[in-house]
Amino acid sequence: MKELSIHASNHSYKVQIGKGLRHTVGSMIAKDYSHVMIITDSQVAPLYLEDVKHSLTGTPIDTVIFPAGEQAKSMSQYEELLTACIENSLDRKSLIIALGGGVVGDLAGFVAATYMRGIDYIQMPTTVLAHDSSVGGKVAINHPLGKNLIGSFHSPVQVLYDVETLQTLPYHELRSGYAEIIKHGCLDDPDLFHDATSRSLADEAITEVLEDHLLKGIAIKASVVEQDEKETGIRKYLNLGHTLGHAIESEAGYGHVTHGEAVAIGLLFAMYVSKEKLEASMPIANLYAWLGKQGYPLNVLTHLDTSSLVDRMKKDKKSTSGKVNMVLLEELGKPVMMEVKETELTELLNRFKEEVMSC
Amino acid sequence: MKELSIHASNHSYKVQIGKGLRHTVGSMIAKDYSHVMIITDSQVAPLYLEDVKHSLTGTPIDTVIFPAGEQAKSMSQYEELLTACIENSLDRKSLIIALGGGVVGDLAGFVAATYMRGIDYIQMPTTVLAHDSSVGGKVAINHPLGKNLIGSFHSPVQVLYDVETLQTLPYHELRSGYAEIIKHGCLDDPDLFHDATSRSLADEAITEVLEDHLLKGIAIKASVVEQDEKETGIRKYLNLGHTLGHAIESEAGYGHVTHGEAVAIGLLFAMYVSKEKLEASMPIANLYAWLGKQGYPLNVLTHLDTSSLVDRMKKDKKSTSGKVNMVLLEELGKPVMMEVKETELTELLNRFKEEVMSC
Repeated sequence: MKELSIHASNHSYKVQIGKGLRHTVGSMIAKDYSHVMIITDSQVAPLYLEDVKHSLTGTPIDTVIFPAGEQAKSMSQYEELLTACIENSLDRKSLIIALGGGVVGDLAGFVAATYMRGIDYIQMPTTVLAHDSSVGGKVAINHPLGKNLIGSFHSPVQVLYDVETLQTLPYHELRSGYAEIIKHGCLDDPDLFHDATSRSLADEAITEVLEDHLLKGIAIKASVVEQDEKETGIRKYLNLGHTLGHAIESEAGYGHVTHGEAVAIGLLFAMYVSKEKLEASMPIANLYAWLGKQGYPLNVLTHLDTSSLVDRMKKDKKSTSGKVNMVLLEELGKPVMMEVKETELTELLNRFKEEVMSC
Repeated sequence: MKELSIHASNHSYKVQIGKGLRHTVGSMIAKDYSHVMIITDSQVAPLYLEDVKHSLTGTPIDTVIFPAGEQAKSMSQYEELLTACIENSLDRKSLIIALGGGVVGDLAGFVAATYMRGIDYIQMPTTVLAHDSSVGGKVAINHPLGKNLIGSFHSPVQVLYDVETLQTLPYHELRSGYAEIIKHGCLDDPDLFHDATSRSLADEAITEVLEDHLLKGIAIKASVVEQDEKETGIRKYLNLGHTLGHAIESEAGYGHVTHGEAVAIGLLFAMYVSKEKLEASMPIANLYAWLGKQGYPLNVLTHLDTSSLVDRMKKDKKSTSGKVNMVLLEELGKPVMMEVKETELTELLNRFKEEVMSC
């Protein structure tokens, strides 16, 4: 088992990564709780819920299973979960366990953040992508008018990452999660970037290095978040690849391309803009080739309209007064913020489509 | 104008109390905001909304007015306000002003706490009671199964208390608010207790000392909250008078007795239990006489069933495993927590009804 500590503003917590942790949750919880409520979704429950339940003894346990999918991050599902907390008599000394991917973590985390003004919760991520969201304390639900618009900062008391639960992941979800690992490498660990992009994700051997890659990815995320918990400064670097990524996601229609797949293309674009504007030497061709081999749907971009994408980038939460703030790279491991004007962005995106994406 | 600073865990903020502050809000805001949204209710809006709006210049201003009353602290009203924030394009650099009593502060504060993971807000209390709730960062809405069960801790960036807005308060609301001022006196300032209970609330001269009483009450609340923001220790002292108070409120039916009126009776009971269990010397007769003269509905207790009240006290958020944790007083200004068993509580409450409340 690998372990690291994260120092949030009001408490520190451990991230523990290893094989089979779901069988030992009970003995790994550091505190006594009056009550434990496991919140999970319909996809994860049949696979791992019983294992987690069996590992917990001596404490009253309740479970809530909601229908899997992004649509669960709704106000009505949030209210249902709060009702379940009350009906099961959770008090301020109770614990919520969020067992699942990013949706479960975001939703159950927001419930924990706001039930009786905040109770403890543990993140048990079951996807690669959730290595990113399980750390840092951002929890949220969606509003019909926008994703993650309702939420707060509420750090978990512990993150328990059982890498065995990743073995049941569909290949496209593994791929989606790797985009964030590669992003973390770009931000602060060129070796991680090079190592990850030298592997074949479809190869079974990937499970052997996964633990190491996840730990490194989380360590980078954690170090950024520790320095800037509330996203006023360098936390914005984590947005690398997300400016175009988010635009692709919403322009293609959610569900048509996964978050990570869109971010992968966004990373390529950030590298391209870094090369053009900062004369940075960027492994664009290597990354492009690797992404292609892993089956990332790179051609999705060619079907999307440049001006619609630019419009969406302008509306990004991180953008101010019509200009787009992009995270660029001076070199691998050295992020920098840069304001790009709309006209320039349009031109860069058109050239990127032509020069890079149509090879 | 009187002023004091409050040191919350992640930022400090000022409480400013004075006459006519609603006309100078614009010049008193310490920071530049991209957008200001004033949230208020149907009772306060016709009286003071225009004044506050006129004081703000140069920043886009939106206003939302919701129907006054405790029922506004609902999930659906919360969602409506969030929608208004989005539709009015509030971003992370926007400000919410909560203009009104405790309901407005709690609801608008929870919106500010959770919109885009938390934006700034200013409390502008317009009731005496809100001197208590506007400080300390507790924000919440109600669940059909219980009051204030959904919420978080989110301190305002400023509290602007225009005492002129208190002149339009109905007398019973002034009275209700004074119960919390007297409670604060009991906890930490015997002089405040004696001074407040030597005045006639119906007398116009009360407006002259109100500013001073509010400041002293807030100072006590603030000092407790600074030491224990998240209610793990001494913040529980603020519950003085609330154990029986909450039970009376819900047993009588919300709306039949105000929060403060119920707390006033609860204070008397806390004093009685302190006398019986701690042999404390308590000004019970004085407080009883003063409350009677001010028209507090003291006879409400005689109509309520003792065992139902004890049942409700057992279910209080602060109670654990069937015993009731009460805040008692060793003497005026010296609170102490004490566990009281159900049988003893029943006996004490019966004797209190007979010996004190039926004079």
